[in-house]
Amino acid sequence: MLAIVGCSQLITLRGGAGPRTGPAMRELGIVENGAVLIEGDAIVEAGPAAALRIPPVCEVIDAQGRVVMPGFIDAHTHPVFATPRGAEMDVASGRGGIPSTVRRTRAATEEQLFQSAKLRAARFLRCGTTTIEAKSGFGLTLADELKLLRVIRRLDRDGVIRTVPTFLGAYLVPEEYRARRSDYVDLVSREMLPKVAAERLAEYCDVFCEPEVFSVAECRQVLDKARFLGLGLRIHADQFSDSNGAALAAELGAATADHLECTDAAGLAGLHDTGVQPVLLPASVYALNSGVYADARAMVDDGMGVVLATGFNPGSSPTPSMTMVLSLAATQMNMTIAEGITAATVNAAHSLGRGDRIGSIEAGKLADIVIHDCRDYRELGYCFGVEHAWRVFIGGRQVFSRDSSTPF
Amino acid sequence: MLAIVGCSQLITLRGGAGPRTGPAMRELGIVENGAVLIEGDAIVEAGPAAALRIPPVCEVIDAQGRVVMPGFIDAHTHPVFATPRGAEMDVASGRGGIPSTVRRTRAATEEQLFQSAKLRAARFLRCGTTTIEAKSGFGLTLADELKLLRVIRRLDRDGVIRTVPTFLGAYLVPEEYRARRSDYVDLVSREMLPKVAAERLAEYCDVFCEPEVFSVAECRQVLDKARFLGLGLRIHADQFSDSNGAALAAELGAATADHLECTDAAGLAGLHDTGVQPVLLPASVYALNSGVYADARAMVDDGMGVVLATGFNPGSSPTPSMTMVLSLAATQMNMTIAEGITAATVNAAHSLGRGDRIGSIEAGKLADIVIHDCRDYRELGYCFGVEHAWRVFIGGRQVFSRDSSTPF
Repeated sequence: MLAIVGCSQLITLRGGAGPRTGPAMRELGIVENGAVLIEGDAIVEAGPAAALRIPPVCEVIDAQGRVVMPGFIDAHTHPVFATPRGAEMDVASGRGGIPSTVRRTRAATEEQLFQSAKLRAARFLRCGTTTIEAKSGFGLTLADELKLLRVIRRLDRDGVIRTVPTFLGAYLVPEEYRARRSDYVDLVSREMLPKVAAERLAEYCDVFCEPEVFSVAECRQVLDKARFLGLGLRIHADQFSDSNGAALAAELGAATADHLECTDAAGLAGLHDTGVQPVLLPASVYALNSGVYADARAMVDDGMGVVLATGFNPGSSPTPSMTMVLSLAATQMNMTIAEGITAATVNAAHSLGRGDRIGSIEAGKLADIVIHDCRDYRELGYCFGVEHAWRVFIGGRQVFSRDSSTPF
Repeated sequence: MLAIVGCSQLITLRGGAGPRTGPAMRELGIVENGAVLIEGDAIVEAGPAAALRIPPVCEVIDAQGRVVMPGFIDAHTHPVFATPRGAEMDVASGRGGIPSTVRRTRAATEEQLFQSAKLRAARFLRCGTTTIEAKSGFGLTLADELKLLRVIRRLDRDGVIRTVPTFLGAYLVPEEYRARRSDYVDLVSREMLPKVAAERLAEYCDVFCEPEVFSVAECRQVLDKARFLGLGLRIHADQFSDSNGAALAAELGAATADHLECTDAAGLAGLHDTGVQPVLLPASVYALNSGVYADARAMVDDGMGVVLATGFNPGSSPTPSMTMVLSLAATQMNMTIAEGITAATVNAAHSLGRGDRIGSIEAGKLADIVIHDCRDYRELGYCFGVEHAWRVFIGGRQVFSRDSSTPF
């Protein structure tokens, strides 16, 4: 048994069976002077410290007045790739850098990719993230995509970080298929997807829907097959232009439509009506300095189950920090920090089909918990550019701790 | 004796007697496989590891292939104030929040303010900053301004972090003087300044020059007196409007003009011709979402000795991270990361009259050195929202270390 006591604010996010919407996104279920009791990998009890029965034999961790909350769930990341070289980091090369990353990722062994992904995962943990949705997409051959998905599975199985695997063979048309792009779409849908599904290497299939990447028709071909094979659907939609990606997500009943910087009102209405969750990625807008953030305020006010994610990738969003995303959401998209936390925990969990297991601190859920080095949750999105997590637990097991303690 | 070896890139920034300008801002004086030898608080030798003579009795720190560079010098911070409360952190209240911060700062004891400033200083160290220019300005009475300046002095004397103290009595007109603002300007120039100078509590005097804060004439009254008393001058200039703050800085030969988001071409030309250094504060533009960044690219290309700083303060720039500022400079202001590092070290040192002691790694300079947890300096501005420093030394004394090692 493990007890976490001395929580100035225990952010439970308890209650509710689906994503939160509207004003409910601002309700964090805060228990002041709270405590959590954990047995094995699960939460047994969470509430006011005074009401908690701590058994005689129990490890007790004193949060000493800090904020305790569910681990962040990052619902959109591209974490497996060959590490960028110096010059590739100087100017945000955006999607222009993907081909060279693909070349070097293909050349890397599965073990090399696992070791670099493991170091990257440690950065996510340091930032308070305990689950990442992890996409393939830097392989773009059958063998290389499977290699990436095996790395993603191993991160989870080895207990490095929880991963939800997504197959993103349709991230871009690789150089060798530029002159015959329909052959590549066929390869993805007819060869890669059946193999991925047979080996149960992915729970979701994603596509990059953009006129210069994959057309709506090409995306539909891939996603139709994925749905037939039992995979959930996610779509990179309308990042650089209003390409009807959101409409496609609504049509196919995707779990999420991601980016949405350029989606028009009709596109958003379609997502709203079909319950597709928007996954907003302000860190990529920031890093690319593309200038247009998604209209998060309208989506929240219109009652959509908004999710925030880093979009972590080496080209256009090299940050593993969900608190950085909270800051971007607050300063650039006019979300409150409470709304941001809901978007980054319970709503993210539902978007990944994990709403029953993670995303809140309630009896029966997995003990994925972070103690942040602050007294008030609002500091997480207020003081930016720093790391806030002080202790991180996955399934009740401590996976990160920081010795120094330096509140704002 | 202390030796730091195993530096993949030793960023020396060596050479030159003044601020760097133009293409020289991109020259970091990098030594690959470098090493540094330190005796007492000073650097004895720095260069290729193969050429360094490590004495028989010497502590050796192996950077294990990491980047080693001078500590960041943050040339614009407001670090002494009563810690904000929860609701004050939810929405960036900008300057609107200053009056309540002033009320609570006045109510705090010198010891309380020192303790909170010490925790904040630890955050600066964690982010790789070893010297901060530190302004008063949340007191706004003679006694309270002196109280803040004594806290700033104690941070330095106690070895917490190096500070360069700046008197900013003219930060705003306090509530009790709203109906008689000229009386407050008189108080600052005729009572506060002589006392501050007599007690040698500040090296610089700063003013907030903006139509709704202090007029050019009011700023001139304060700064004339400061100059007469032997203080260097700094000016908050043209942050929200083109208020001729830059022109005043040029007229008075100020050391720096800070902000400059709204300065016109004539104002910039005046700074250029008189050698006033621009101090750019992109984190405040980001946090306030005010939309207009200073034209850093033009200033660098025109040969000005550009400085980057956090502008750290509880209202409009709650970040202690100079690497976050490097990211903002690269993504939002089109500076290279090399230019950013020069702006944040050697150029900042010159703007504070410390160019002979800090800002580069050269024999004879103080051993203010940071080992960053990366292999290439460009990662410092590329991977954002995280903390990069792995070991931090002030005058050869280790003041921060991180146990975990998780490169990108």
